[in-house]
Amino acid sequence: MTQFNDAELTTAVIRSFDQTPNPRVKFLLQELVKSLHDYVRRTDLTFEEWDYAIDFLTRTGQKCTDIRQEFILLSDVLGVSMLVDAVNHRNRDGATETTVLGPFYVGEHKVTPHGADISASLPGERMFVQSRVTDLKGKPLAGVPVDIWHADDDGFYDSQKPDYTAQGPSSRARFITDADGRFYFRTIVPCSYPIPTDGPVGQMIKQTNRHAMRPAHVHFLVNAKGYEPLITHVFMDGDKYLDSDVVFGVKDELIATIEKRTDPVMPDGKSADGPWSLMTYEFRLKPGGGMAPAPLGTKVAEDA
Amino acid sequence: MTQFNDAELTTAVIRSFDQTPNPRVKFLLQELVKSLHDYVRRTDLTFEEWDYAIDFLTRTGQKCTDIRQEFILLSDVLGVSMLVDAVNHRNRDGATETTVLGPFYVGEHKVTPHGADISASLPGERMFVQSRVTDLKGKPLAGVPVDIWHADDDGFYDSQKPDYTAQGPSSRARFITDADGRFYFRTIVPCSYPIPTDGPVGQMIKQTNRHAMRPAHVHFLVNAKGYEPLITHVFMDGDKYLDSDVVFGVKDELIATIEKRTDPVMPDGKSADGPWSLMTYEFRLKPGGGMAPAPLGTKVAEDA
Repeated sequence: MTQFNDAELTTAVIRSFDQTPNPRVKFLLQELVKSLHDYVRRTDLTFEEWDYAIDFLTRTGQKCTDIRQEFILLSDVLGVSMLVDAVNHRNRDGATETTVLGPFYVGEHKVTPHGADISASLPGERMFVQSRVTDLKGKPLAGVPVDIWHADDDGFYDSQKPDYTAQGPSSRARFITDADGRFYFRTIVPCSYPIPTDGPVGQMIKQTNRHAMRPAHVHFLVNAKGYEPLITHVFMDGDKYLDSDVVFGVKDELIATIEKRTDPVMPDGKSADGPWSLMTYEFRLKPGGGMAPAPLGTKVAEDA
Repeated sequence: MTQFNDAELTTAVIRSFDQTPNPRVKFLLQELVKSLHDYVRRTDLTFEEWDYAIDFLTRTGQKCTDIRQEFILLSDVLGVSMLVDAVNHRNRDGATETTVLGPFYVGEHKVTPHGADISASLPGERMFVQSRVTDLKGKPLAGVPVDIWHADDDGFYDSQKPDYTAQGPSSRARFITDADGRFYFRTIVPCSYPIPTDGPVGQMIKQTNRHAMRPAHVHFLVNAKGYEPLITHVFMDGDKYLDSDVVFGVKDELIATIEKRTDPVMPDGKSADGPWSLMTYEFRLKPGGGMAPAPLGTKVAEDA
């Protein structure tokens, strides 16, 4: 029992978890041991490579703060986040497609009045977003909180800026759908942007000659009582990174056509003040087990 | 290309690493993607479980300091460290067996004269260690640095104590073999001890009903020019945890018989001052590529 060869070692480690009280935890850990050991054996991993992995994981953990989640980023660029999303949403039944939460959701947003300009202080091409939340049959869902967040014209989220805690949110808000399931707001057209490359994950992307870009998009988190919470984003048609999103998050159905407009007034009857873009996108929710717990991997920033 | 099913997603992620310049890095990453994706699919991992994993890895990284390596500890309790050791030491040819470095090596030790008591200030049963370093044919190897470290009578390493940096090393030293390949020193008999349980890894051990104990042992790192560096430890026969070491590090050949003695003098002719134990163990080195780089996963503590 003490003199292990490879295979006996794996058996002993699996057996060491035999007394785990929770059967699902036991299963997950024993399968993890199988996967990890299989990987080491299949690759004949060297000490230097193991050492690099230990150091990489340590640096990834130490890069995390309340508003920076480098392990989610790692999961994203390895396609793991999208795969977890896929295995948990096998049958959509016509509901809007889901995609990864991403590392820039910082917890519940502030409720904001319809029509508000959530990027008021930012330069960029103006955009009006009109949307509606319905059930699978198209029945409007009223009073549903919808969290929205997107990058600015330089490709940065508010939470990535050093003065975020003092400044408070920008291009980040919550709307509550009206009696017709509608919500609408003003913002700027988001642009494609690189994931943060100043940490271990960015270093990996560079060293493997991948590009770090995500196609332009707006994140939506729709959380209605009695329905499956919907975490998704809507992409801008024509973006050159739609086919090579660094986090593999694009689905055809989530690409919105953006209309270029010159009408002097926007859909809510207020002045447009120059040319603008119109994004129209509707969300269809699937029945589900009531309000979800706090969305995944999120740390609520104190002032968000 | 943008509308992925599970399998297409995995293929796309693997392909994203196709332009990696270093072929070994490319292989390791592509195999990693296969393993991770296979794990998610096989377990139908839920969002809550993924979220737990992200948080667990983050806490593990944030527990690391210059003298605490929680990711090595995680690798150890999952048997990964011993497996990496195994796949890299398939043919021993009669050389001493290897085992994991463990998280308590803190970089090169201070050279200490033969016979010194390296645990002088500690309570515990006194022990004399006599050893020799030879090649595979038994030819003594002179001038070889041998690093030694072990836990105290309460099961703690010096580097685990809050005043470590100020106090300097204890039960931790380097000896240089003499013309006969010998080295010897005084210390205390180490005891079995738990791995640190105040971090995420200890939490996992508790939640899975595993015990956290390692059988009593002394670590040795023998690093001779022209030979494979030897990282190993020597266990005390009779320890009740020899069959269930939490890090799977025990090998039969590494268990030393400890002689209980009452002779008034120790082997170097100096007074024994009461009953004592004698550990005798010899190390056989295999030819190899000269001095190794700094041992794995180590951060040199400033005052070590």
